[in-house]
Formats: sequence, structure tokens, C-alpha cells
Amino acid sequence: MKNLDLKVTHESLVNFLRENIKATGLKKAVIGLSGGIDSALVAYLLRDAIGAENILAIMMPYKTSNPESLLHAKMVVEDLKINSKIIEITDMVDAYFKNEPDATMLRKGNKMARERMSILYDNSAKEGALVIGTSNKTEIFLGYSTQFGDSACAINPIGDLYKTNVWDLSRYLGVPSPLIEKKPSADLWEGQTDEQEMGLTYKEADEILYRLLEEKKSIDEIESEGFDLNLIENIVSRMKRSEYKRRMPLIAELKNR
Amino acid sequence: MKNLDLKVTHESLVNFLRENIKATGLKKAVIGLSGGIDSALVAYLLRDAIGAENILAIMMPYKTSNPESLLHAKMVVEDLKINSKIIEITDMVDAYFKNEPDATMLRKGNKMARERMSILYDNSAKEGALVIGTSNKTEIFLGYSTQFGDSACAINPIGDLYKTNVWDLSRYLGVPSPLIEKKPSADLWEGQTDEQEMGLTYKEADEILYRLLEEKKSIDEIESEGFDLNLIENIVSRMKRSEYKRRMPLIAELKNR
Repeated sequence: MKNLDLKVTHESLVNFLRENIKATGLKKAVIGLSGGIDSALVAYLLRDAIGAENILAIMMPYKTSNPESLLHAKMVVEDLKINSKIIEITDMVDAYFKNEPDATMLRKGNKMARERMSILYDNSAKEGALVIGTSNKTEIFLGYSTQFGDSACAINPIGDLYKTNVWDLSRYLGVPSPLIEKKPSADLWEGQTDEQEMGLTYKEADEILYRLLEEKKSIDEIESEGFDLNLIENIVSRMKRSEYKRRMPLIAELKNR
Repeated sequence: MKNLDLKVTHESLVNFLRENIKATGLKKAVIGLSGGIDSALVAYLLRDAIGAENILAIMMPYKTSNPESLLHAKMVVEDLKINSKIIEITDMVDAYFKNEPDATMLRKGNKMARERMSILYDNSAKEGALVIGTSNKTEIFLGYSTQFGDSACAINPIGDLYKTNVWDLSRYLGVPSPLIEKKPSADLWEGQTDEQEMGLTYKEADEILYRLLEEKKSIDEIESEGFDLNLIENIVSRMKRSEYKRRMPLIAELKNR
């Protein structure tokens, strides 16, 4: 895939944030800071768009979250000097699962993601701050997100950036290197990594998604470039299965009005 | 506004549900049953589409919810003989607000709506059942809903029905009369009614929304028919302010790829 012009990209995303936050009549923004690279990058973009004083970063660990995640989130807070708070989600999540002892890790992870969304929106109302999204294009198109959870937001500055672009832009903007170098993880259980869970690497996925989405190439064309057919089909299948996450609920239309 | 042909409407909504549930590969549906008319109507439509045995209705009262709401929800469960369970949301919601003692009723109501969404989706995953939406067209266009809360669903059979249509179709399908006759209420505090909170009646709102949305009339034209200008402007303003709830999050588009 083509490298982005990082200077131009940075300027356009900062302008996007500044203009669209202003258009809502609000001055402030609220984000969930997970300790991962995506939300960190959004924090840096927001700092440049509306100033550190107008950002509220909320860290929302669960009792089993990796303590390193919180440390990494705090590195961002300290580097940017943004307002922050920690809201543990353990009590809220456990209050539900005490009656669901057999719930899978996936169900728990989705409940946590929705609890975090709900907390961000409550803080949005409390502080008059817009909820800014932190999903990248790779996870949006692979469907690696919780509907009405981490993908829920008012506006998202990095939803057209592949994970590869997120790494490049984060390096360019000086996001702390531990966040750039670690393996991406939804942090649902110890040692989890996104790539292991999905059975692909972001580098490969990005190259294939780029050819599908930007270059509009067919599966055959991509295979003829030397990519593994199973991998291409895995990605196409993930895109199809997650289509519903990228559109509004389907409403029955009355034709007999 | 024109009355609907209820027989045709019923058939088309039942077909919509049957076809679109089937298309997902799932056989079952899950809905939140509030005790109000909208979710009751959806339960009746679902019964006709996929059969009582394939419906899971979840009642999710909070400690301050009107006990009458639960009674009315149970009337639907008993009439339709659908599977149901009660999951109290008090512990989950209070676990959050114990650290937010000054939260307004509105913030609490939104948190409750999102908790209910999150529980419906967890049950969707647990049971392999599709989350069916229960928002009507009037509340969707007035923005009288919680984003990523009660408006969140996979498919919604009544989103093109005005509240007036919901009443008519509910009567036609035999929804228990106490649900039809009571004042609609989001049940956020004692004695709350939707109409009092919004400062309008559904009947009036529907007549004006119908002229705006179906007949594409201007504010002037509607006023010349004898409707109060303040009321028309209130409705138009609610529609504009809630536009963001009816579309996907805004994603920054890279133009320099």
C-alpha cells in the first residue's frame, strides 16, 4: 500500500476535528483511552485540534485488564497534559455477570465495550463534550469491534486510516514508543493479541484490504500478486459478515402509505 | 394524516420480519419489553412472523420503574405465550452512579437505556437471537430516544409507523387495552409522560411530521392549514437537533491517499 503524506494527513485530520467539533456547538471532547495506539493517536490529534485543556480522557479498566494498559494510557495523559480520570468498570460489569456465570470471554468483552461507551456518553452529557471515536479502518472493515460499543461515537478522525497508517502517523506525532511497539490487543484476557485472535497480521490484512477497498481489485487479481487465497477469502468473509456494523439498523419501509 | 390499511400493513411488516430474520441465518429474536405500546406491538408482529416459541422478551426494570410497566409487559407475555425473563438493571446502573451523586434524571435515563441495550445484545449472543428494534417513526424523528440505547437494534419493523399508526395497528392486533389507553411514558420518573416532557401531543406531532416527511410541505404551508407556528418550529428544531442520531458516526475521509 502507498504510504501517506503524514504532514498533509495530520493537517487534514486536525482540521476535520476542529471544524466538526465546532459545528456541534461544543468546545470539548471526551475519549476513552485504552492504552492502545488508536486512542493514543486520537488524543494527539485532538490536542492539536482543540488544545489539551479541552480534552477529557477516561481510562476504564476492568479488574482483569493488563496493568500495562493503564500505564500506557497514563503516558499519553502525562505527555499531552490532558484532563483525565479513571473509572473502573468492574462493579458495573460484574453486577450483570453474577447471574451469568457461564458467559464466554467474548460476551464479557462486548459487555465491557458497551459499558465504556455508556460511560463516555454519560461524561459527554455531564461535561458538554463530544465523544470522539478511535476505531481504525482495518478493524472497522474486519468487523473487529463491538457494535454500539467501541465503534460508537459522534465523529471519528481515524476511521479512514489503516492500522499501518495509524502506526506511521503515531510515530510522526511522537506517540510514546511502547504503545507503537507492542502487539495490538483488545485486552480481554491475558496475553490476547488481535492478530492471534483473528489469525492474520495487520500488515497482511492492510495490504489486502487496501487492494480491495482503494484499488477495487478482485480476489483473483490479489491472489495473482502472490497473496494467499485463504487469507484473502478470510478477509472478504469478515468484511461481509460485519457489514451490518457499518450501517444503521434496517427499518421496515411502508409502501402502502 | 391518512389512515393505514391495517391488514396490508400487518402483512408487510410480518413479511419484513420473517425475511430479514431469515437472511441473517438466525431463527430467534430478542426484544426488550418495557410495558409500553411500541415493544408490545413488536412482540405481536414477531409472534405472527416467527412464532411465539422463537421470541425471547426481556423485562428490565430499574428500582424506580413504575410497577405497572412490568404488569403490562407481563400481560403481553401471557397473551402471546412467549419466552421471557426479568433482569433488574438496578445493580448495574447504581454501581456507576454511586460515584456520580449529582447526575440528573436525564443522564440516569440514558444510562438505563444503554444498559438495557447492552443486556439485549448479550442475550442476542447467548441465545443466537436477533435484537429487534421497537422505536416508532415519531420518536425517531423527534429524537426522543437514547443514541446507542433504545434506538439500537438489528432490524426495526415499526420505524416507519407514526405513534398514531402504532395505536391503530395495536388495536387491530389485539394488544391488551391498558397498554393502548395509557399515556406513553419513558418511565424515568414517577408520573412522567412523553407528551408533557416534550411539550406536545403525539396526535399533533404526527399530523405535523406527516406533512413534513410524507407530504413534503413547508412550514408556511403547514401553518396555513391552521397548525400553531411555535409547535411546527419546535418539531422542525427537534428533527434538526436529532439528525445525528439517525446516521452513522462521521468519519474523516482521507482525500490525499
